Amino acid sequence: METQGGAGQDGSIGDWATCAADPGYRAAVLDLLGALAYGELSAFERLADDAKLAPGLADKAALARMASAEFQHYQLLHDRLTEIGADPTEAMTPFVEPLESFHRVTRPSDWLEGLVKAYVGDSIATDFYREVAVRLDDDTRELVLRVMDDTGHAQFAVDKVRQAIEQDPRVGGRLALWGRRLMGEALSQAQHVVAERDALSNLLVGGAEVRGFDLVEVGKMFNRITEAHTKRMSALGLSS
Amino acid sequence: METQGGAGQDGSIGDWATCAADPGYRAAVLDLLGALAYGELSAFERLADDAKLAPGLADKAALARMASAEFQHYQLLHDRLTEIGADPTEAMTPFVEPLESFHRVTRPSDWLEGLVKAYVGDSIATDFYREVAVRLDDDTRELVLRVMDDTGHAQFAVDKVRQAIEQDPRVGGRLALWGRRLMGEALSQAQHVVAERDALSNLLVGGAEVRGFDLVEVGKMFNRITEAHTKRMSALGLSS
Repeated sequence: METQGGAGQDGSIGDWATCAADPGYRAAVLDLLGALAYGELSAFERLADDAKLAPGLADKAALARMASAEFQHYQLLHDRLTEIGADPTEAMTPFVEPLESFHRVTRPSDWLEGLVKAYVGDSIATDFYREVAVRLDDDTRELVLRVMDDTGHAQFAVDKVRQAIEQDPRVGGRLALWGRRLMGEALSQAQHVVAERDALSNLLVGGAEVRGFDLVEVGKMFNRITEAHTKRMSALGLSS
Repeated sequence: METQGGAGQDGSIGDWATCAADPGYRAAVLDLLGALAYGELSAFERLADDAKLAPGLADKAALARMASAEFQHYQLLHDRLTEIGADPTEAMTPFVEPLESFHRVTRPSDWLEGLVKAYVGDSIATDFYREVAVRLDDDTRELVLRVMDDTGHAQFAVDKVRQAIEQDPRVGGRLALWGRRLMGEALSQAQHVVAERDALSNLLVGGAEVRGFDLVEVGKMFNRITEAHTKRMSALGLSS
Protein backbone atom coordinates (compact mmCIF):
# COMPACT_ATOMS: atom_id res chain seq x y z
CA MET A 1 0.00 0.00 0.00
CA GLU A 2 1.39 3.42 -0.96
CA THR A 3 1.53 6.16 1.58
CA GLN A 4 1.06 9.64 0.23
CA GLY A 5 -0.46 12.96 1.35
CA GLY A 6 -0.63 13.10 5.13
CA ALA A 7 -0.44 9.34 5.60
CA GLY A 8 1.94 7.92 8.19
CA GLN A 9 4.17 4.88 7.88
CA ASP A 10 1.37 2.43 8.69
CA GLY A 11 -0.96 3.99 6.11
CA SER A 12 -2.93 5.80 8.81
CA ILE A 13 -3.74 9.48 8.43
CA GLY A 14 -4.57 9.69 12.15
CA ASP A 15 -7.76 9.52 14.19
CA TRP A 16 -10.97 11.49 13.72
CA ALA A 17 -10.08 14.20 16.25
CA THR A 18 -6.88 15.05 14.38
CA CYS A 19 -8.31 14.90 10.84
CA ALA A 20 -11.59 16.69 11.63
CA ALA A 21 -9.66 19.86 12.48
CA ASP A 22 -9.69 20.39 8.70
CA PRO A 23 -13.21 21.68 7.85
CA GLY A 24 -12.98 20.23 4.33
CA TYR A 25 -12.22 16.79 5.69
CA ARG A 26 -15.00 17.05 8.24
CA ALA A 27 -17.52 18.07 5.57
CA ALA A 28 -16.43 15.18 3.35
CA VAL A 29 -16.89 12.63 6.12
CA LEU A 30 -20.33 14.05 7.05
CA ASP A 31 -21.29 13.60 3.38
CA LEU A 32 -19.91 10.10 3.32
CA LEU A 33 -21.69 9.03 6.53
CA GLY A 34 -24.89 10.76 5.43
CA ALA A 35 -24.85 8.97 2.07
CA LEU A 36 -24.11 5.68 3.79
CA ALA A 37 -26.86 6.19 6.41
CA TYR A 38 -29.52 7.00 3.85
CA GLY A 39 -28.30 4.10 1.75
CA GLU A 40 -28.90 1.74 4.69
CA LEU A 41 -32.34 3.18 5.43
CA SER A 42 -33.19 2.87 1.77
CA ALA A 43 -31.85 -0.70 1.70
CA PHE A 44 -34.08 -1.48 4.67
CA GLU A 45 -37.13 -0.23 2.75
CA ARG A 46 -36.17 -2.01 -0.45
CA LEU A 47 -35.61 -5.35 1.29
CA ALA A 48 -38.84 -4.99 3.27
CA ASP A 49 -40.61 -4.38 -0.03
CA ASP A 50 -38.95 -7.40 -1.62
CA ALA A 51 -40.12 -9.48 1.35
CA LYS A 52 -43.66 -8.96 0.07
CA LEU A 53 -42.75 -10.56 -3.27
CA ALA A 54 -41.27 -13.62 -1.55
CA PRO A 55 -42.74 -16.91 -2.77
CA GLY A 56 -43.00 -18.34 0.76
CA LEU A 57 -42.82 -17.61 4.48
CA ALA A 58 -39.20 -18.78 4.88
CA ASP A 59 -38.03 -16.49 2.05
CA LYS A 60 -40.10 -13.65 3.44
CA ALA A 61 -38.48 -14.07 6.86
CA ALA A 62 -35.00 -14.25 5.29
CA LEU A 63 -35.53 -10.89 3.58
CA ALA A 64 -36.98 -9.35 6.72
CA ARG A 65 -33.88 -10.55 8.62
CA MET A 66 -31.60 -8.78 6.12
CA ALA A 67 -33.71 -5.64 6.23
CA SER A 68 -33.31 -5.60 10.03
CA ALA A 69 -29.54 -6.03 9.69
CA GLU A 70 -29.44 -3.00 7.35
CA PHE A 71 -31.40 -1.05 9.91
CA GLN A 72 -28.86 -1.92 12.64
CA HIS A 73 -26.17 -0.50 10.35
CA TYR A 74 -28.23 2.63 9.83
CA GLN A 75 -28.47 2.99 13.61
CA LEU A 76 -24.66 2.85 14.02
CA LEU A 77 -24.21 5.59 11.41
CA HIS A 78 -26.99 7.69 12.93
CA ASP A 79 -25.39 7.41 16.37
CA ARG A 80 -21.96 8.28 15.01
CA LEU A 81 -23.27 11.37 13.21
CA THR A 82 -24.91 12.50 16.44
CA GLU A 83 -21.73 11.77 18.41
CA ILE A 84 -19.63 14.03 16.17
CA GLY A 85 -22.16 16.84 16.50
CA ALA A 86 -23.92 16.46 13.16
CA ASP A 87 -27.66 16.31 12.47
CA PRO A 88 -28.33 12.91 10.84
CA THR A 89 -31.33 14.19 8.88
CA GLU A 90 -29.33 17.10 7.50
CA ALA A 91 -26.43 14.83 6.58
CA MET A 92 -28.71 12.38 4.75
CA THR A 93 -30.88 14.91 2.90
CA PRO A 94 -28.58 15.59 -0.10
CA PHE A 95 -28.58 11.88 -0.93
CA VAL A 96 -32.31 11.24 -0.76
CA GLU A 97 -33.07 12.46 -4.28
CA PRO A 98 -30.23 10.64 -6.15
CA LEU A 99 -31.06 7.35 -4.40
CA GLU A 100 -34.80 7.73 -4.90
CA SER A 101 -34.21 8.56 -8.59
CA PHE A 102 -32.20 5.37 -8.90
CA HIS A 103 -35.00 3.37 -7.26
CA ARG A 104 -37.69 5.01 -9.41
CA VAL A 105 -36.04 3.95 -12.66
CA THR A 106 -35.04 0.49 -11.42
CA ARG A 107 -38.21 -0.86 -9.85
CA PRO A 108 -38.02 -4.68 -9.81
CA SER A 109 -41.00 -6.29 -11.50
CA ASP A 110 -40.65 -9.57 -9.63
CA TRP A 111 -38.91 -11.46 -6.82
CA LEU A 112 -35.83 -12.38 -8.91
CA GLU A 113 -35.28 -8.86 -10.23
CA GLY A 114 -35.52 -7.67 -6.63
CA LEU A 115 -32.87 -10.16 -5.52
CA VAL A 116 -30.50 -9.24 -8.36
CA LYS A 117 -30.99 -5.55 -7.68
CA ALA A 118 -30.26 -5.87 -3.97
CA TYR A 119 -27.24 -8.04 -4.71
CA VAL A 120 -25.79 -5.78 -7.41
CA GLY A 121 -26.58 -2.60 -5.50
CA ASP A 122 -25.07 -3.82 -2.24
CA SER A 123 -21.98 -5.16 -3.98
CA ILE A 124 -21.25 -1.95 -5.87
CA ALA A 125 -21.80 0.11 -2.71
CA THR A 126 -19.54 -2.21 -0.71
CA ASP A 127 -16.78 -2.05 -3.34
CA PHE A 128 -17.00 1.72 -3.44
CA TYR A 129 -16.94 2.27 0.33
CA ARG A 130 -14.10 -0.21 0.81
CA GLU A 131 -12.03 1.74 -1.75
CA VAL A 132 -12.81 4.98 0.05
CA ALA A 133 -12.26 3.49 3.52
CA VAL A 134 -8.48 3.23 3.11
CA ARG A 135 -8.36 7.02 2.69
CA LEU A 136 -10.20 7.75 5.94
CA ASP A 137 -9.12 8.44 9.50
CA ASP A 138 -8.92 5.36 11.72
CA ASP A 139 -12.23 5.88 13.58
CA THR A 140 -14.30 6.53 10.47
CA ARG A 141 -12.65 3.69 8.58
CA GLU A 142 -13.47 1.21 11.32
CA LEU A 143 -17.14 2.26 11.29
CA VAL A 144 -17.41 2.16 7.49
CA LEU A 145 -15.92 -1.34 7.31
CA ARG A 146 -18.21 -2.48 10.12
CA VAL A 147 -21.42 -1.36 8.42
CA MET A 148 -20.22 -2.89 5.15
CA ASP A 149 -20.18 -6.28 6.85
CA ASP A 150 -22.03 -8.88 4.87
CA THR A 151 -25.62 -9.28 6.05
CA GLY A 152 -25.83 -12.70 4.39
CA HIS A 153 -27.80 -11.22 1.53
CA ALA A 154 -25.28 -11.92 -1.21
CA GLN A 155 -25.17 -15.69 -0.79
CA PHE A 156 -28.93 -15.86 -0.42
CA ALA A 157 -29.46 -13.96 -3.68
CA VAL A 158 -26.84 -16.01 -5.53
CA ASP A 159 -28.42 -19.30 -4.43
CA LYS A 160 -31.96 -18.28 -5.37
CA VAL A 161 -31.01 -16.79 -8.75
CA ARG A 162 -28.92 -19.83 -9.71
CA GLN A 163 -31.78 -22.17 -8.81
CA ALA A 164 -34.18 -20.14 -10.95
CA ILE A 165 -31.82 -20.19 -13.97
CA GLU A 166 -31.34 -23.96 -13.62
CA GLN A 167 -35.10 -24.43 -13.70
CA ASP A 168 -35.58 -22.09 -16.65
CA PRO A 169 -32.47 -20.94 -18.55
CA ARG A 170 -34.40 -18.17 -20.35
CA VAL A 171 -34.57 -16.34 -17.00
CA GLY A 172 -30.80 -15.78 -17.33
CA GLY A 173 -31.10 -13.59 -20.43
CA ARG A 174 -33.69 -11.34 -18.89
CA LEU A 175 -31.73 -10.96 -15.63
CA ALA A 176 -28.45 -10.28 -17.49
CA LEU A 177 -30.10 -7.31 -19.24
CA TRP A 178 -31.47 -6.18 -15.89
CA GLY A 179 -27.99 -6.33 -14.29
CA ARG A 180 -26.53 -4.18 -17.08
CA ARG A 181 -29.26 -1.62 -16.64
CA LEU A 182 -28.72 -1.48 -12.87
CA MET A 183 -24.99 -0.86 -13.30
CA GLY A 184 -25.61 1.89 -15.85
CA GLU A 185 -28.13 3.70 -13.65
CA ALA A 186 -25.92 3.36 -10.57
CA LEU A 187 -22.93 4.93 -12.34
CA SER A 188 -25.11 7.70 -13.67
CA GLN A 189 -26.40 8.61 -10.19
CA ALA A 190 -22.91 8.33 -8.70
CA GLN A 191 -21.70 10.89 -11.25
CA HIS A 192 -24.49 13.30 -10.26
CA VAL A 193 -23.48 13.00 -6.61
CA VAL A 194 -19.79 13.53 -7.33
CA ALA A 195 -20.62 16.58 -9.48
CA GLU A 196 -22.74 18.18 -6.76
CA ARG A 197 -20.90 17.39 -3.53
CA ASP A 198 -17.61 19.28 -3.57
CA ALA A 199 -16.23 18.08 -0.25
CA LEU A 200 -16.93 14.46 -1.08
CA SER A 201 -15.34 14.81 -4.53
CA ASN A 202 -12.29 16.45 -3.01
CA LEU A 203 -11.90 13.45 -0.76
CA LEU A 204 -11.95 11.25 -3.86
CA VAL A 205 -9.67 13.33 -6.08
CA GLY A 206 -7.32 14.45 -3.36
CA GLY A 207 -8.18 18.16 -3.11
CA ALA A 208 -8.45 18.05 0.68
CA GLU A 209 -5.63 17.43 3.12
CA VAL A 210 -6.10 13.69 3.09
CA ARG A 211 -4.59 10.82 1.24
CA GLY A 212 -6.77 11.23 -1.85
CA PHE A 213 -6.32 10.03 -5.37
CA ASP A 214 -6.13 11.98 -8.59
CA LEU A 215 -8.62 11.77 -11.45
CA VAL A 216 -6.70 8.97 -13.13
CA GLU A 217 -7.00 6.99 -9.92
CA VAL A 218 -10.74 7.72 -9.70
CA GLY A 219 -11.11 6.38 -13.23
CA LYS A 220 -9.18 3.26 -12.23
CA MET A 221 -11.37 2.82 -9.19
CA PHE A 222 -14.54 2.91 -11.28
CA ASN A 223 -12.94 0.40 -13.65
CA ARG A 224 -12.17 -1.94 -10.75
CA ILE A 225 -15.75 -1.68 -9.52
CA THR A 226 -17.12 -2.37 -13.00
CA GLU A 227 -14.81 -5.37 -13.41
CA ALA A 228 -15.88 -6.78 -10.06
CA HIS A 229 -19.51 -6.35 -11.17
CA THR A 230 -18.82 -8.26 -14.40
CA LYS A 231 -17.21 -11.10 -12.46
CA ARG A 232 -20.13 -11.28 -10.05
CA MET A 233 -22.62 -11.40 -12.89
CA SER A 234 -20.70 -14.29 -14.49
CA ALA A 235 -20.58 -16.13 -11.18
CA LEU A 236 -24.34 -15.72 -11.05
CA GLY A 237 -24.65 -17.37 -14.47
CA LEU A 238 -25.35 -14.02 -16.13
CA SER A 239 -23.03 -12.60 -18.75
CA SER A 240 -22.99 -8.86 -18.19
CA MET B 1 -54.83 -15.24 41.43
CA GLU B 2 -56.97 -18.40 41.48
CA THR B 3 -55.39 -21.77 41.01
CA GLN B 4 -57.48 -24.34 39.22
CA GLY B 5 -56.99 -27.26 36.83
CA GLY B 6 -53.43 -28.53 37.08
CA ALA B 7 -52.07 -25.34 38.60
CA GLY B 8 -49.76 -25.54 41.60
CA GLN B 9 -49.75 -23.32 44.69
CA ASP B 10 -47.78 -20.56 42.98
CA GLY B 11 -50.10 -20.50 39.96
CA SER B 12 -47.62 -22.41 37.84
CA ILE B 13 -48.76 -25.40 35.80
CA GLY B 14 -45.14 -26.54 35.44
CA ASP B 15 -42.49 -26.20 32.77
CA TRP B 16 -42.74 -26.95 29.05
CA ALA B 17 -41.29 -30.46 29.30
CA THR B 18 -44.00 -31.49 31.79
CA CYS B 19 -46.94 -29.83 30.07
CA ALA B 20 -45.98 -30.79 26.49
CA ALA B 21 -46.46 -34.47 27.37
CA ASP B 22 -50.14 -33.72 26.70
CA PRO B 23 -50.52 -33.64 22.88
CA GLY B 24 -53.47 -31.26 23.14
CA TYR B 25 -51.43 -28.78 25.14
CA ARG B 26 -48.50 -29.08 22.77
CA ALA B 27 -50.73 -28.45 19.73
CA ALA B 28 -52.26 -25.41 21.43
CA VAL B 29 -48.86 -23.87 22.18
CA LEU B 30 -47.64 -24.50 18.61
CA ASP B 31 -50.73 -22.65 17.40
CA LEU B 32 -50.14 -19.83 19.83
CA LEU B 33 -46.46 -19.41 18.93
CA GLY B 34 -47.25 -19.75 15.21
CA ALA B 35 -49.91 -17.03 15.42
CA LEU B 36 -47.59 -14.83 17.41
CA ALA B 37 -44.66 -15.39 15.00
CA TYR B 38 -46.69 -14.57 11.92
CA GLY B 39 -48.13 -11.58 13.77
CA GLU B 40 -44.60 -10.24 14.32
CA LEU B 41 -43.56 -10.85 10.72
CA SER B 42 -46.71 -9.14 9.57
CA ALA B 43 -46.09 -6.24 11.98
CA PHE B 44 -42.61 -5.90 10.51
CA GLU B 45 -44.07 -5.58 7.01
CA ARG B 46 -46.80 -3.19 8.08
CA LEU B 47 -44.39 -0.87 9.91
CA ALA B 48 -41.93 -0.97 7.01
CA ASP B 49 -44.79 0.04 4.73
CA ASP B 50 -45.83 2.83 7.07
CA ALA B 51 -42.24 4.08 7.04
CA LYS B 52 -42.79 4.98 3.38
CA LEU B 53 -45.68 7.26 4.34
CA ALA B 54 -43.56 9.08 6.93
CA PRO B 55 -43.49 12.86 6.49
CA GLY B 56 -39.73 13.08 7.15
CA LEU B 57 -36.50 11.14 7.55
CA ALA B 58 -36.60 11.10 11.37
CA ASP B 59 -40.14 9.63 11.37
CA LYS B 60 -39.16 7.17 8.67
CA ALA B 61 -36.20 5.99 10.74
CA ALA B 62 -38.38 5.72 13.88
CA LEU B 63 -40.78 3.38 12.07
CA ALA B 64 -37.93 1.35 10.59
CA ARG B 65 -36.51 0.97 14.13
CA MET B 66 -39.83 -0.43 15.39
CA ALA B 67 -40.11 -2.74 12.40
CA SER B 68 -36.66 -4.13 13.25
CA ALA B 69 -37.68 -4.65 16.87
CA GLU B 70 -40.70 -6.66 15.70
CA PHE B 71 -38.41 -8.73 13.55
CA GLN B 72 -36.17 -9.52 16.54
CA HIS B 73 -39.30 -10.80 18.32
CA TYR B 74 -40.17 -12.91 15.31
CA GLN B 75 -36.68 -14.40 15.44
CA LEU B 76 -37.09 -15.44 19.10
CA LEU B 77 -40.38 -17.19 18.30
CA HIS B 78 -38.92 -18.84 15.21
CA ASP B 79 -35.97 -20.14 17.22
CA ARG B 80 -38.23 -21.42 19.99
CA LEU B 81 -40.48 -23.28 17.52
CA THR B 82 -37.39 -24.92 16.01
CA GLU B 83 -36.06 -25.75 19.47
CA ILE B 84 -39.22 -27.65 20.43
CA GLY B 85 -39.12 -29.61 17.17
CA ALA B 86 -41.77 -27.68 15.23
CA ASP B 87 -41.54 -26.30 11.69
CA PRO B 88 -42.00 -22.53 11.97
CA THR B 89 -43.53 -22.21 8.49
CA GLU B 90 -46.05 -24.95 9.25
CA ALA B 91 -46.93 -23.38 12.59
CA MET B 92 -47.49 -19.95 11.01
CA THR B 93 -49.42 -21.04 7.92
CA PRO B 94 -52.93 -21.31 9.47
CA PHE B 95 -52.71 -17.68 10.58
CA VAL B 96 -51.55 -16.13 7.32
CA GLU B 97 -55.01 -15.89 5.78
CA PRO B 98 -56.88 -14.40 8.79
CA LEU B 99 -54.17 -11.75 9.31
CA GLU B 100 -53.93 -10.94 5.61
CA SER B 101 -57.72 -10.63 5.44
CA PHE B 102 -57.59 -8.19 8.32
CA HIS B 103 -54.90 -6.15 6.55
CA ARG B 104 -56.76 -6.23 3.23
CA VAL B 105 -59.89 -4.66 4.71
CA THR B 106 -58.00 -2.19 6.92
CA ARG B 107 -55.46 -0.63 4.58
CA PRO B 108 -54.44 2.77 6.01
CA SER B 109 -54.94 5.60 3.55
CA ASP B 110 -52.35 7.86 5.18
CA TRP B 111 -49.60 8.19 7.78
CA LEU B 112 -51.97 8.86 10.72
CA GLU B 113 -54.29 5.96 9.91
CA GLY B 114 -51.20 3.77 9.74
CA LEU B 115 -50.07 4.93 13.18
CA VAL B 116 -53.50 4.39 14.75
CA LYS B 117 -53.76 0.96 13.17
CA ALA B 118 -50.37 -0.18 14.41
CA TYR B 119 -51.13 1.21 17.88
CA VAL B 120 -54.60 -0.35 18.14
CA GLY B 121 -53.50 -3.65 16.62
CA ASP B 122 -50.44 -4.02 18.83
CA SER B 123 -52.38 -3.06 21.95
CA ILE B 124 -55.19 -5.56 21.35
CA ALA B 125 -52.68 -8.30 20.57
CA THR B 126 -50.67 -7.47 23.69
CA ASP B 127 -53.78 -7.52 25.90
CA PHE B 128 -54.86 -10.84 24.46
CA TYR B 129 -51.50 -12.59 24.79
CA ARG B 130 -50.99 -11.28 28.33
CA GLU B 131 -54.37 -12.76 29.30
CA VAL B 132 -53.40 -16.08 27.75
CA ALA B 133 -49.87 -16.02 29.19
CA VAL B 134 -51.00 -16.68 32.77
CA ARG B 135 -52.45 -20.00 31.59
CA LEU B 136 -49.21 -21.23 30.02
CA ASP B 137 -46.30 -23.31 31.25
CA ASP B 138 -43.43 -21.30 32.74
CA ASP B 139 -41.10 -21.47 29.69
CA THR B 140 -43.72 -20.48 27.14
CA ARG B 141 -45.09 -17.75 29.40
CA GLU B 142 -41.67 -16.16 29.79
CA LEU B 143 -41.18 -16.10 26.00
CA VAL B 144 -44.65 -14.68 25.31
CA LEU B 145 -44.19 -11.88 27.83
CA ARG B 146 -40.75 -11.12 26.40
CA VAL B 147 -41.95 -10.70 22.81
CA MET B 148 -44.86 -8.57 24.05
CA ASP B 149 -42.34 -6.08 25.39
CA ASP B 150 -43.09 -2.57 24.22
CA THR B 151 -41.08 -1.62 21.14
CA GLY B 152 -41.65 2.07 21.84
CA HIS B 153 -44.30 2.21 19.16
CA ALA B 154 -47.23 3.05 21.40
CA GLN B 155 -45.82 6.29 22.80
CA PHE B 156 -44.60 7.36 19.36
CA ALA B 157 -48.07 6.85 17.84
CA VAL B 158 -49.81 8.59 20.75
CA ASP B 159 -47.54 11.65 20.47
CA LYS B 160 -47.92 11.99 16.70
CA VAL B 161 -51.71 11.49 16.68
CA ARG B 162 -52.23 13.99 19.54
CA GLN B 163 -50.14 16.59 17.73
CA ALA B 164 -52.15 16.09 14.54
CA ILE B 165 -55.48 16.48 16.39
CA GLU B 166 -54.24 19.64 18.12
CA GLN B 167 -53.36 21.12 14.75
CA ASP B 168 -56.65 20.10 13.16
CA PRO B 169 -59.43 18.83 15.47
CA ARG B 170 -61.44 17.41 12.53
CA VAL B 171 -58.77 14.74 12.19
CA GLY B 172 -60.05 13.32 15.50
CA GLY B 173 -63.49 12.43 14.12
CA ARG B 174 -62.09 10.60 11.14
CA LEU B 175 -59.57 8.65 13.26
CA ALA B 176 -62.21 7.75 15.88
CA LEU B 177 -64.30 6.08 13.14
CA TRP B 178 -61.15 4.34 11.89
CA GLY B 179 -60.40 3.02 15.41
CA ARG B 180 -63.91 1.57 15.72
CA ARG B 181 -63.61 -0.15 12.37
CA LEU B 182 -60.24 -1.65 13.31
CA MET B 183 -61.62 -3.09 16.56
CA GLY B 184 -64.63 -4.58 14.75
CA GLU B 185 -62.50 -6.25 12.08
CA ALA B 186 -60.00 -7.54 14.65
CA LEU B 187 -62.76 -9.19 16.72
CA SER B 188 -64.27 -10.69 13.59
CA GLN B 189 -60.96 -12.29 12.52
CA ALA B 190 -60.27 -13.47 16.08
CA GLN B 191 -63.63 -15.29 16.05
CA HIS B 192 -62.74 -17.04 12.77
CA VAL B 193 -59.47 -18.24 14.27
CA VAL B 194 -61.09 -19.48 17.48
CA ALA B 195 -63.75 -21.32 15.44
CA GLU B 196 -61.17 -23.10 13.27
CA ARG B 197 -58.32 -23.94 15.64
CA ASP B 198 -59.60 -26.55 18.10
CA ALA B 199 -56.46 -26.92 20.20
CA LEU B 200 -56.11 -23.17 20.63
CA SER B 201 -59.78 -22.81 21.56
CA ASN B 202 -59.47 -25.62 24.06
CA LEU B 203 -56.65 -23.75 25.70
CA LEU B 204 -58.93 -20.73 26.00
CA VAL B 205 -62.07 -22.53 27.18
CA GLY B 206 -60.32 -25.06 29.35
CA GLY B 207 -60.93 -28.24 27.37
CA ALA B 208 -57.30 -29.32 27.58
CA GLU B 209 -55.47 -30.35 30.72
CA VAL B 210 -54.38 -26.84 31.47
CA ARG B 211 -55.66 -24.06 33.61
CA GLY B 212 -58.21 -22.81 31.10
CA PHE B 213 -61.27 -20.67 31.50
CA ASP B 214 -64.86 -21.43 30.65
CA LEU B 215 -66.94 -19.62 28.03
CA VAL B 216 -68.15 -17.05 30.54
CA GLU B 217 -64.55 -16.23 31.29
CA VAL B 218 -63.73 -15.93 27.57
CA GLY B 219 -66.60 -13.48 27.23
CA LYS B 220 -65.23 -11.51 30.18
CA MET B 221 -61.79 -11.50 28.65
CA PHE B 222 -63.07 -10.03 25.38
CA ASN B 223 -64.93 -7.42 27.42
CA ARG B 224 -61.76 -6.47 29.27
CA ILE B 225 -59.90 -6.12 25.96
CA THR B 226 -62.67 -3.98 24.47
CA GLU B 227 -62.73 -1.77 27.56
CA ALA B 228 -58.97 -1.30 27.43
CA HIS B 229 -59.33 -0.33 23.75
CA THR B 230 -61.99 2.26 24.64
CA LYS B 231 -59.74 3.76 27.31
CA ARG B 232 -56.79 3.93 24.93
CA MET B 233 -58.88 5.65 22.27
CA SER B 234 -59.99 8.26 24.82
CA ALA B 235 -56.41 8.81 25.94
CA LEU B 236 -55.58 9.43 22.29
CA GLY B 237 -58.26 12.11 22.14
CA LEU B 238 -60.58 9.82 20.18
CA SER B 239 -63.93 8.76 21.58
CA SER B 240 -64.47 5.19 20.47
